[in-house]
Amino acid sequence: MSGYFITLEGIEGVGKTTNLNYVRQCLEERGIEVVVTREPGGTPLGEEIRELLLTPRDEAVSEMAELLMMFAARAQHLFAVIEPALARGAWVLCDRFTDATFAYQGGGRQLAAEPVAMLERLVQKERRPDLTLLLDLPVEIGLSRAHARGKPDRFEAERVEFFQRVRDAYLERAQQEASRITVIDAAPSLDQVQRQIDQALARLERK
Amino acid sequence: MSGYFITLEGIEGVGKTTNLNYVRQCLEERGIEVVVTREPGGTPLGEEIRELLLTPRDEAVSEMAELLMMFAARAQHLFAVIEPALARGAWVLCDRFTDATFAYQGGGRQLAAEPVAMLERLVQKERRPDLTLLLDLPVEIGLSRAHARGKPDRFEAERVEFFQRVRDAYLERAQQEASRITVIDAAPSLDQVQRQIDQALARLERK
Repeated sequence: MSGYFITLEGIEGVGKTTNLNYVRQCLEERGIEVVVTREPGGTPLGEEIRELLLTPRDEAVSEMAELLMMFAARAQHLFAVIEPALARGAWVLCDRFTDATFAYQGGGRQLAAEPVAMLERLVQKERRPDLTLLLDLPVEIGLSRAHARGKPDRFEAERVEFFQRVRDAYLERAQQEASRITVIDAAPSLDQVQRQIDQALARLERK
Repeated sequence: MSGYFITLEGIEGVGKTTNLNYVRQCLEERGIEVVVTREPGGTPLGEEIRELLLTPRDEAVSEMAELLMMFAARAQHLFAVIEPALARGAWVLCDRFTDATFAYQGGGRQLAAEPVAMLERLVQKERRPDLTLLLDLPVEIGLSRAHARGKPDRFEAERVEFFQRVRDAYLERAQQEASRITVIDAAPSLDQVQRQIDQALARLERK
């Protein structure tokens, strides 16, 4: 039986890493093989593309080039990691996926959604996450948490309005795909956040 | 007035570099500003993508990832080099362009032509070369010339049948787009090859 594909989404500083580890632990305690991975990246080639994307550079990068690099890394990730893992029954837990592309390139960079949707169909065919946990926080709180971590990369160096558009795009997408995307309020204590995650995982298993 | 966009195509060893220099010289002698560039590459980001594409690697690379990286480099190239040059009236002379993607990914790797055509429309909008010089040689001759140059890259290491499919795809494309693509027989002496190029350039100007 094929495994489940779970993605975690959210802007900088919402606690994706902590909560990803929490989900992994919950699943492993139940004896499930979990493959934890991330985008952009997840493969040697994908990590090299990630490096190209995240390095601050003098050159202005065309939005279309950025979008295509994201999907190139994703194609390799699906091919080499995600599809083989799901096929052998493992669950895949991925830090960001195509919702991030809709949010960052579509929302943040204000690229039209249509090219993103077109590339999603081209690269993923029918593959979509079974469950997406969207960790949500007001932008100012997320950014102040993220900035405490040190030097910003090319995306983190964007301004507050950029992340506001990213958050809005995430929330809009959660409305459009309500059966797949669960919005997790990341503002309260870790305990309360994790109780929301438990409920979302329980709903997934009743599917 | 917008400049002309000329591309040179062909498999390994057909003499693209020599003939590209010849075209540049012909145009510069007539006082035309010529921007000489190449694909994949042509920009700092594009050259880094080129490096990722051409480096031999242990990892199997998905055909879709390769295709999207090609078009990512192309999007950046159009944005940063080709469109600005044409807009200011310079002519652009490019060593390989989208015909190479149809030939290598479509023909060589036997990927369907439809994704390539879709990405062409997405990335290039209406932009197509005004003239494409397809330097043509039997595969065995081209490869024996190319191998004399040293260690093969990830594409050059492919087998003869691969390049046969690439050549066939190039020639098929030349038939489909006969008004744009001129097939240059690269087998005879350099003098005779260059006479064919002169004629193609003359036709371009009568357009």
